[in-house]
Amino acid sequence: MDDYVKSGMIVGLGTGSTAFYAVERVGMKLKSGELKDVVCIPTSERTKHQAEGLGIPLVTLNEKSRLDVTIDGADDVDPNLNLVKGGGGALLREKMVENVSDKFICIVDESKLSGGLGPNFPLPVEITPFCYEHTIRLISNLPTMKGCKPVLRMGNVGNNKRDGDNIAVTDNGNYIVDLYFTEPIKDVKQAAKELKCLVGVVDHGIFPGMASAVIVAGKDGIRVAGQGGEKPWWGPKSSWF
Amino acid sequence: MDDYVKSGMIVGLGTGSTAFYAVERVGMKLKSGELKDVVCIPTSERTKHQAEGLGIPLVTLNEKSRLDVTIDGADDVDPNLNLVKGGGGALLREKMVENVSDKFICIVDESKLSGGLGPNFPLPVEITPFCYEHTIRLISNLPTMKGCKPVLRMGNVGNNKRDGDNIAVTDNGNYIVDLYFTEPIKDVKQAAKELKCLVGVVDHGIFPGMASAVIVAGKDGIRVAGQGGEKPWWGPKSSWF
Repeated sequence: MDDYVKSGMIVGLGTGSTAFYAVERVGMKLKSGELKDVVCIPTSERTKHQAEGLGIPLVTLNEKSRLDVTIDGADDVDPNLNLVKGGGGALLREKMVENVSDKFICIVDESKLSGGLGPNFPLPVEITPFCYEHTIRLISNLPTMKGCKPVLRMGNVGNNKRDGDNIAVTDNGNYIVDLYFTEPIKDVKQAAKELKCLVGVVDHGIFPGMASAVIVAGKDGIRVAGQGGEKPWWGPKSSWF
Repeated sequence: MDDYVKSGMIVGLGTGSTAFYAVERVGMKLKSGELKDVVCIPTSERTKHQAEGLGIPLVTLNEKSRLDVTIDGADDVDPNLNLVKGGGGALLREKMVENVSDKFICIVDESKLSGGLGPNFPLPVEITPFCYEHTIRLISNLPTMKGCKPVLRMGNVGNNKRDGDNIAVTDNGNYIVDLYFTEPIKDVKQAAKELKCLVGVVDHGIFPGMASAVIVAGKDGIRVAGQGGEKPWWGPKSSWF
């Protein structure tokens, strides 16, 4: 991370267990004076509170529509550095921030690496509540989504158990449907397009080719794939690191 | 309208002043027995109440994901039968219904005909509230939206005055930004795609090529453009009927 965040930058701060440590580190380096003139944009309320606690200066996308770099985690990473995100339900805000970042640095542990998106982690799609059963049917019928099993997220939107009696509601007042795949999604870019173009879909968890680099924490140390690092070393045949 | 709605059909009922009379007519013909076994899907709460008052049997998209025909109005119609809708703020529900209708019959008065979409009626775009100023900036920067003046809708979402101290909120909990154009939008299909693909945009008021036929009520009577009617007779040079 230290290679990517420099003094004077506008930095996006991600959400989740891996992003947590990156936020701590930015806070420490600002305090020690190693970093100067950095302002940050958090991707969630939780990260906002953490950053405020560390005294990190914050702005929003309303003030700054372009960022130098964003550091965030992911739920699934394929060998083309396409990502699935949104297990925590914040995919829309994360995508809004990462979409306008010059660099997006993704930090994951090796369990997130897969040969192809889909089977490793269910793909979340944010949809409008109105006639959601109809929208879920249309999603299942998309050519690229063939064979997926859609499950409406219940309980707390960021709850990994995903149970409960009530439908989970995102920060934006929408529902999430998690798509379970047994086979990898063949054409990730086309899938992203079909999902976003569908009436009733607000956005989805595919981040196609948006990561500049992926920092992977494995049992044998840290490796970097993409910009400034190695060619991705995991393949479609081995679904693990 | 009588040519399009037949016994046994699933019919979408539009919203607004012109659609109002179509709904009345369906109700009358069901009552007289001229129409039988018709079930309808309303595109708004207002139309739902009107139809219930007329005893029209109603279902939702959750039960029926395909309709035979929908009858609805529009705010702007170009010579290729591309439409702008959403002056009343119900564009998402209307698009959900019309998108899965085998036929979409549009009823307008002649003031709605224009040489090209844009200058005749501001284009509404439904966006998520989070960092809406940022999203509005991104919309203005889209290649196809060049030169538009975006105005956040205030007051009541269906209020044509569009004033008030509070930001108008749609049925889906989103905001509407109205885009004012002085020149017609050149590539309507591309504009529709760019808008829908933008992160933060839920949907927009362009209905590209979705109308099967447009019924036009003018001072000299009724003319039909499209399927079962004439070739559109208004052109890009004359912006009126």
